[in-house]
Amino acid sequence: MNRVLIRPEELDAGGRIVLSDRRAAHIRSVLRGQAGQALRVGVINGRPGVGRIEAVDAREVVLRWKADEAMPPAPRVDLLLALPRPKVMRRLWAPLASMGVGRVVLVNAARVERNYFDTHWLDPAVYEALLIEGLEQAGDTRLPQVRVERRLKPFVEDEVDGLFPSSLRLLAHPGEGGPIAAQRVPDGERLLLAIGPEGGWSDFEVALFEARGFRRIAMGWRTLRSDTACVALLALAHEAVRCSARAAMA
Amino acid sequence: MNRVLIRPEELDAGGRIVLSDRRAAHIRSVLRGQAGQALRVGVINGRPGVGRIEAVDAREVVLRWKADEAMPPAPRVDLLLALPRPKVMRRLWAPLASMGVGRVVLVNAARVERNYFDTHWLDPAVYEALLIEGLEQAGDTRLPQVRVERRLKPFVEDEVDGLFPSSLRLLAHPGEGGPIAAQRVPDGERLLLAIGPEGGWSDFEVALFEARGFRRIAMGWRTLRSDTACVALLALAHEAVRCSARAAMA
Repeated sequence: MNRVLIRPEELDAGGRIVLSDRRAAHIRSVLRGQAGQALRVGVINGRPGVGRIEAVDAREVVLRWKADEAMPPAPRVDLLLALPRPKVMRRLWAPLASMGVGRVVLVNAARVERNYFDTHWLDPAVYEALLIEGLEQAGDTRLPQVRVERRLKPFVEDEVDGLFPSSLRLLAHPGEGGPIAAQRVPDGERLLLAIGPEGGWSDFEVALFEARGFRRIAMGWRTLRSDTACVALLALAHEAVRCSARAAMA
Repeated sequence: MNRVLIRPEELDAGGRIVLSDRRAAHIRSVLRGQAGQALRVGVINGRPGVGRIEAVDAREVVLRWKADEAMPPAPRVDLLLALPRPKVMRRLWAPLASMGVGRVVLVNAARVERNYFDTHWLDPAVYEALLIEGLEQAGDTRLPQVRVERRLKPFVEDEVDGLFPSSLRLLAHPGEGGPIAAQRVPDGERLLLAIGPEGGWSDFEVALFEARGFRRIAMGWRTLRSDTACVALLALAHEAVRCSARAAMA
C-alpha cells in the first residue's frame, strides 16, 4: 500500500478519520504506524495528501488528514476490452488501476462466452475494492470508470464517438499490425485501445472497428493470456502518449 | 494451451508419444481431441510441429509428431530482476515465459528480504513447470535460462560482462529516467533490463550498475507490483528491439 485511500464521507469536519478495517490493520502491522507519523493518504477521486497518526491501538487508527499534493495527472488511455474469463478478470482489476486507465468498457465478442457476464467479478461492489487495491499500490487516487456492454455492435456504432470524441483509436489484433510505439497521439487527445479475446476478434468485429476509425496494431506472434496482454499493451499505450508529448515539446 | 510441449526423451524412435498427464486431460476435455486431429505440439528447446492424434481414451492420448515449422525467433531481451516476494515470484514465472526472455537472473538487493531466497518457487522442478505453462500459452518452445544470485555486487562486477557481452544495458529505477522507447538496440545486439525491488534500487546499487554501463530508464510516477512492472517493462523492451530493427531496415 503506497497510499492509503479514504472516501470523502469518511472525513469529519475537522479532517479527522477513524479507521478500523484492513487499512487500520495495514497501518499497524505493515507500516508499523505510531502516533505522530505521517502517511501518504488520498481521497478517492480527490486530492492526495498526508494523514498524521493521532492515535493507534489494537482496534482503530485515528488520522488527521490534509491535502498536500496536486492531483496526479489523469491517465490519457482508455480501454475497450473483450470480457476475459472470470478468473482472469479477477486478476486484472488491480493491475488495470495500477497501470492507469481513464475508462474501461468490457464488451462482448464472438469469442467471449456468454456466461462470463454472470460472474460476480462484474459486480461494482466487488471490483471497486480491487480497483482501490490497485490505486493504493500505484499511489493514485482516480478510480477508472467502468461500463459493461453486452452488445458490441450497437456500442461501437452508436456510443464510441460520443464517449471517446477525440481519441486515437487502436485495435490490438494478432497478425499484421504495426507497433504501438510508431503511433503519435496529438497533444490533448486520448488513446483508446481495443483488446480482443485470446482467440482474437472475428473478421466481422475487425471490420466494425475499422469502420469507426480504429487502426490495427500488434505486439508480435505470441499469444498472451488476457491479463498479461492488457498490462503489456497498456504499458505500450502510455509510452506512446508520453513519447508523443516529448516529441511535441522537442 | 496454444501449443502442447513435450520433452525430446518422450518421443520414441518412430516419432510417437504417449501422454497420460495434464496434457492428455487438456487434449481430451479442452481441445476435444479426436483420432486424426492435428495439434500444435513443440519439443521443449526444440522445433515446433504437429502432433496427429492416433488414439485417445480415458487414460491416455497417443500422438505422432512431426516438426513442421522453423524455430521461432529467440527473444533478444534478458532480465536481471531483484527477487520479489514469494507470492509475486510464483505469479511471475508463466508471464515471463509467455512474454519471452532469453535469460533471467534473480538477484539480491538492499530492499530484498533474505528469506525470499528460501521459497520453493526457486526450486527448478517447481518453476520449470510454470515456465512451460507460459510457453504453452504463448506458443513458444524455448525455456528461459534461470540463475539465482544471492550476492549482487560480485555478480554485477565480475559476471555481467561475460554473460551479456554485447547488450544494451538498461536500469529501471523510479524517477528521472527516460522512456525505453527512445532507446535503440543495435542490430544483432541484445537488451539487458535490470528491474529493482518495489522500493527501488539503493543509491549504492544504482552506482554499481551505472559503473557497468547501465543507463537509467523509468516508466512514470506509478509504483507497480513487481509482476505488473516486469510484464510492462518486458513489453517496452521487446517493442524497443522491434522498432530498432524496423528503423535499421528503413
